[in-house]
Amino acid sequence: MSKDLIQPRTLKGFRDYLPEVMIVRERLMETARRVYRSYGFSPIDTPALEYAEILAGKGGEESDKQLFRFVDHGARDVALRFDLTVPFARFAAEHLNEIGTPFKRYHIAPVWRGENTQRGRYREFVQCDFDTIGTDSNVSDIETLMVIHDLMVAIGFERFTIRVNHRMLLNGVLENLGVADKSVGLLRALDKVLKIGREAVIAEMVDKVGVTTEQAAGVLDFASLKGTNIEILDAAQKLVGTNERGLEGAARLRQLLNACEMAGLKSERIALDLSIARGLDYYTGTIYETFLGDLPGIGSVCSGGRYDNLAGLFTKTPLPGVGASLGLDRLLAAMEELKLVSKVSTPAPVLIIHFDKDRAAEYLRMGRVLRAAGIGAEVYALPKPMKKQLQYADAKGFRFALIAGSNEFDKGCWMLKDLAKQEQQEVAEADLIATLQQKL
Amino acid sequence: MSKDLIQPRTLKGFRDYLPEVMIVRERLMETARRVYRSYGFSPIDTPALEYAEILAGKGGEESDKQLFRFVDHGARDVALRFDLTVPFARFAAEHLNEIGTPFKRYHIAPVWRGENTQRGRYREFVQCDFDTIGTDSNVSDIETLMVIHDLMVAIGFERFTIRVNHRMLLNGVLENLGVADKSVGLLRALDKVLKIGREAVIAEMVDKVGVTTEQAAGVLDFASLKGTNIEILDAAQKLVGTNERGLEGAARLRQLLNACEMAGLKSERIALDLSIARGLDYYTGTIYETFLGDLPGIGSVCSGGRYDNLAGLFTKTPLPGVGASLGLDRLLAAMEELKLVSKVSTPAPVLIIHFDKDRAAEYLRMGRVLRAAGIGAEVYALPKPMKKQLQYADAKGFRFALIAGSNEFDKGCWMLKDLAKQEQQEVAEADLIATLQQKL
Repeated sequence: MSKDLIQPRTLKGFRDYLPEVMIVRERLMETARRVYRSYGFSPIDTPALEYAEILAGKGGEESDKQLFRFVDHGARDVALRFDLTVPFARFAAEHLNEIGTPFKRYHIAPVWRGENTQRGRYREFVQCDFDTIGTDSNVSDIETLMVIHDLMVAIGFERFTIRVNHRMLLNGVLENLGVADKSVGLLRALDKVLKIGREAVIAEMVDKVGVTTEQAAGVLDFASLKGTNIEILDAAQKLVGTNERGLEGAARLRQLLNACEMAGLKSERIALDLSIARGLDYYTGTIYETFLGDLPGIGSVCSGGRYDNLAGLFTKTPLPGVGASLGLDRLLAAMEELKLVSKVSTPAPVLIIHFDKDRAAEYLRMGRVLRAAGIGAEVYALPKPMKKQLQYADAKGFRFALIAGSNEFDKGCWMLKDLAKQEQQEVAEADLIATLQQKL
Repeated sequence: MSKDLIQPRTLKGFRDYLPEVMIVRERLMETARRVYRSYGFSPIDTPALEYAEILAGKGGEESDKQLFRFVDHGARDVALRFDLTVPFARFAAEHLNEIGTPFKRYHIAPVWRGENTQRGRYREFVQCDFDTIGTDSNVSDIETLMVIHDLMVAIGFERFTIRVNHRMLLNGVLENLGVADKSVGLLRALDKVLKIGREAVIAEMVDKVGVTTEQAAGVLDFASLKGTNIEILDAAQKLVGTNERGLEGAARLRQLLNACEMAGLKSERIALDLSIARGLDYYTGTIYETFLGDLPGIGSVCSGGRYDNLAGLFTKTPLPGVGASLGLDRLLAAMEELKLVSKVSTPAPVLIIHFDKDRAAEYLRMGRVLRAAGIGAEVYALPKPMKKQLQYADAKGFRFALIAGSNEFDKGCWMLKDLAKQEQQEVAEADLIATLQQKL
């Protein structure tokens, strides 16, 4: 009976993760979990599928178009989540009595967007969000920055900058200039300053947004303040004058800079940047963006900010909060570009060679001895020629091979081969764990 | 402007995971990852969505009915995966040249089935699969059992039984009895023996499957063999006679029992059980089921077996393999029933009380000092009354509270409160890490 084969293929915009990338991806997720937990953030999970009415209209027109939305078996209008924020809003409203406030949660899970894949974006990607809700305390804003900092260090980056801005400071300046009601248009124009230059932005603000040249210049002067963080803050505070909101924003930023200094964060990793405009129509307080020193062009790898009310569509209880999201896949792409991803596709360092086909039980026993000492070990499944097994070890990236035949078993020892150095030594079984632990 | 609230609710058959359950769920997944990796299994991931033709018709009629299937933006017929085996078959066929064989992978990810929720089943649940493909070596079968064993121990179970059977042994007996062609019907009847008893099963085999009473009795005699594992195996081997397939099955089981003994696995945790019939129409070699000593009624929490060909629908390359799947959510339900799930909803042991509103930076600094020593610590966001903060600590399950006001700061010390014992002691800041590490 002949049968046509089904072509094995993945959907456009979706991808498989092979071991060498997945090992790094898992390490990133584990690092995020460890750092989030160390600050007392608790894990939650929500369904991939939600009622469409929960998700639709929450991320703007673009998001709605990208929703994977369909009718299920029970004739329900459902959709796959496109982010972790809207499900968290629904979750918080539904479980408010159980979780209480303040509530600190992290959520690491895939989301789906039917994006245009020509921009190199995937339609399925993992988000790593953490948020503190139910309080407007600046302590949570400061902690959010510290989490981002510790996360980047834990991942292995030394050179990075967390750019910080504050919506209240900016609003204070806009109010002083008499253009607070035109903030959305002004911020949209401001966002182009790097691309089109100061004069063109001023022209756009005057022509399209309808402010005077002086007002436009005032906005740009504020956004272009340079100097140390404290110098920028002092200058910005002067521009704010007696505007209460602006002064409150300045005070909160000052408290943040002070706390970071006291806690010993390297000051060059934190940069007050009053030009950050992206996300300002959503965020209402502190705003964070994180850039890699060696690859700033890839954009922010961890962004977030403070918002006034998480779940206003689902509950009347106001839930102010602050949080950020690690762009896992963008970071992974950066790490690949920076050659920080090794070509190792096994999580175990030791391969036990299946040398003598009658000794399989001995090899399996040794595997368990190593594992009991915390050393990962694979036993090669088949008694193939040694050369083949060593090729396998090489291809996968094992660091050591353990070899034993009758000679070694008689003497109670193993040949330990360092695969990178291409050196081997005979080690008594009693000394094997200690020898390996020292080398690993 | 008044606006109607959207009711926050989850779809039928779906659930949110709140911190106290999610903390345990994450621990289970981490344990599975750690054990799988220690044997050299590598992580992979595949998309949640696949072309419907990849998934449809692979899990039988029931699976097809349960598929979440729809037409996407690009008019593609797509569906959410209902297990991790079919996507793995597609993955293996698609990436065969890159991954090589033998290939050992694990995959921990959610799957979706539009099941009848009245049976208490969820429509979204996590599977934790591990498989070795590309070899029929018995070493992989033995290792699969060892992985299950180590996984149960690592999760914290002392009393459990891994029941083992072998399809070739059973087939040998059926061939000897001359009923090999009726195996599916016989096994289906055999599966009911605990429920309806020996006589009713014999009657069903005679009436519905069409064998003689003697043949039916022979099948039941085989399946009911009792004694030590070796006694059962010896008796079964006699029933197999000279049947080659049967002898091969017996030899492989003997090798497995021998290797487990050599590796020091407790013999009472492994039970040769020739009555296991479930899954026998899919598996072609060793079969595993795992039962908890304290809650056998919940069914097998980790099942699997050997199969002849993983990906025959996608590639002409034969891919024999062996593996098993941890039923994460069933295990979680068992742990809840056995009161093994604590009511802790924070992953950090220490809460730093926000006692003096002007000392926030000090509290934040101390949090980082503790974290640098590997001790998770949350700083309470607001300077609320101490009683409120201690209630929060209690509700979340923090183990220690750290308190400091002007007195303590002047002396360079902290009040360390053990929340379970309701005891507190003054500790110099220089001794704090050592004191906490000793208590944790």
